[in-house]
Amino acid sequence: MPQQTSDIKIIVLVFLFMITLFPNLFHYIWTLPLSLIFSRSPPLADSTPIMSWAQKQITLQEQSRGSYLVTDEIVKALPEIRNYKVGLLNLFIQHTSCALSLNENWDEDVRADMSDALDRIAPEYLVKGKELYRHSAEGADDMPAHIKSALIGASVTIPIQNGKLATGTWQGIWYLEFRARPHQRKIMATIQGEKYT
Amino acid sequence: MPQQTSDIKIIVLVFLFMITLFPNLFHYIWTLPLSLIFSRSPPLADSTPIMSWAQKQITLQEQSRGSYLVTDEIVKALPEIRNYKVGLLNLFIQHTSCALSLNENWDEDVRADMSDALDRIAPEYLVKGKELYRHSAEGADDMPAHIKSALIGASVTIPIQNGKLATGTWQGIWYLEFRARPHQRKIMATIQGEKYT
Amino acid sequence: MPQQTSDIKIIVLVFLFMITLFPNLFHYIWTLPLSLIFSRSPPLADSTPIMSWAQKQITLQEQSRGSYLVTDEIVKALPEIRNYKVGLLNLFIQHTSCALSLNENWDEDVRADMSDALDRIAPEYLVKGKELYRHSAEGADDMPAHIKSALIGASVTIPIQNGKLATGTWQGIWYLEFRARPHQRKIMATIQGEKYT
Repeated sequence: MPQQTSDIKIIVLVFLFMITLFPNLFHYIWTLPLSLIFSRSPPLADSTPIMSWAQKQITLQEQSRGSYLVTDEIVKALPEIRNYKVGLLNLFIQHTSCALSLNENWDEDVRADMSDALDRIAPEYLVKGKELYRHSAEGADDMPAHIKSALIGASVTIPIQNGKLATGTWQGIWYLEFRARPHQRKIMATIQGEKYT
Repeated sequence: MPQQTSDIKIIVLVFLFMITLFPNLFHYIWTLPLSLIFSRSPPLADSTPIMSWAQKQITLQEQSRGSYLVTDEIVKALPEIRNYKVGLLNLFIQHTSCALSLNENWDEDVRADMSDALDRIAPEYLVKGKELYRHSAEGADDMPAHIKSALIGASVTIPIQNGKLATGTWQGIWYLEFRARPHQRKIMATIQGEKYT
Repeated sequence: MPQQTSDIKIIVLVFLFMITLFPNLFHYIWTLPLSLIFSRSPPLADSTPIMSWAQKQITLQEQSRGSYLVTDEIVKALPEIRNYKVGLLNLFIQHTSCALSLNENWDEDVRADMSDALDRIAPEYLVKGKELYRHSAEGADDMPAHIKSALIGASVTIPIQNGKLATGTWQGIWYLEFRARPHQRKIMATIQGEKYT
């Protein structure tokens, strides 16, 4: 009899040790019959959306005065877009004599016409040759470039849907260079959104 | 004596079982006197902000050339705004010959004047009748529409505060249609922010 | 012998109590040899990004017609920017006859030239004195102000990187006042991003 009692004590102690050291295993065994009867809700970790930010600087190909379609260049530099179910891409050009915009992505005539139209809106000189601007030390094309930059804007914000930019069929990302001499421009790209889980 | 010892052992083992199987209950009883003395901070789960995204496409009522106040139409289509304590609404028009802007929400004369002013800034023809644009296959109003679209912009970003758009008293959301012929336009609306818990 | 057995039992019970009441301490001691051999990944709590929003209204210094560099005024009003590793700042002016932009931050001649250039783009009167606008009850400078506001825009979105605005060397935040009479304007500033942990 004493020997038997000791055996029970050892079993109980081993059992207690198991519970204490592997509580999850014990809980699993303990709740198994119930969990087989009732369907369980998905674990929290899978349903919590993954909010995320990504940011990188992109250096554009050097260009002189003109309007350039840069959609492919931008999308290629940002493979991260694919990871976002829903979000926004902010493209911010870090200069004051060029601009970013969205416009027609097919006919290059539209881009040439745009550059010319902006020259008419912010001309370098008056028709009669009178000086238009106080600020002229950096060249006759500099102050008009600042005006065009203010009119068009330094940044665009584009929605992301299902891992792609949600632009319309005919919309492309435009980089507008307003200085005559070639310039190399930098864009800060900021992606934010809800990632695929 | 041996019998008494056995009783104590059983009580201790039952007690241990209870601790092991219901640790939360045990912790509650164990810390009850202290928690009654000290006020407890709210549990972490309640204070964690709920970050969220919502996105949907809105089809605007078909319109020909003109400036239109669409605040009510947009807000009605986005009841989700009410759920956000703080956030941003991005409205992105998926076309290149119309635009979105914010401007005066009262006098319709302002909207008529705006359309006329943009016609002066990006005219269809020169005063002397000389062709202004290379791109003219889609009509004389198409290239001016692209220019106006670049000047005004394809999107607006509006702050959300306490479940409402934080626009000023006289600010409304404008849809500017630059084509003469009626067009049906699509907006991608992206809401993001911190929801009410 | 019986006495010895009892001693062992007491040690085992104390040990069990310790495990049950201080499971974290026990786990630490238990896994110490392994954790000394294998380098551990950082605990989950530290690696989860802290997503955050901050929003406040800023009242700009009262100004009459002109272009004003307000970078210092804005940054001083938003010390929260320092807390964000990556993010975006949205500045939204709650009025329709002024604007926000980004432009040259050095030469004040650029700002004077900008105001004059916008007067040429959206003039108060035609050269021949013909009335240009239907909407004139609030003064000859009001409708041109609405046009300039639509052209420049009511808001800017600026990337945040490592606790600072990621603007280019020559970029500053501009407030453009289009009304002749001094006005006090309000900006809704919305910061969002991933905070330092």
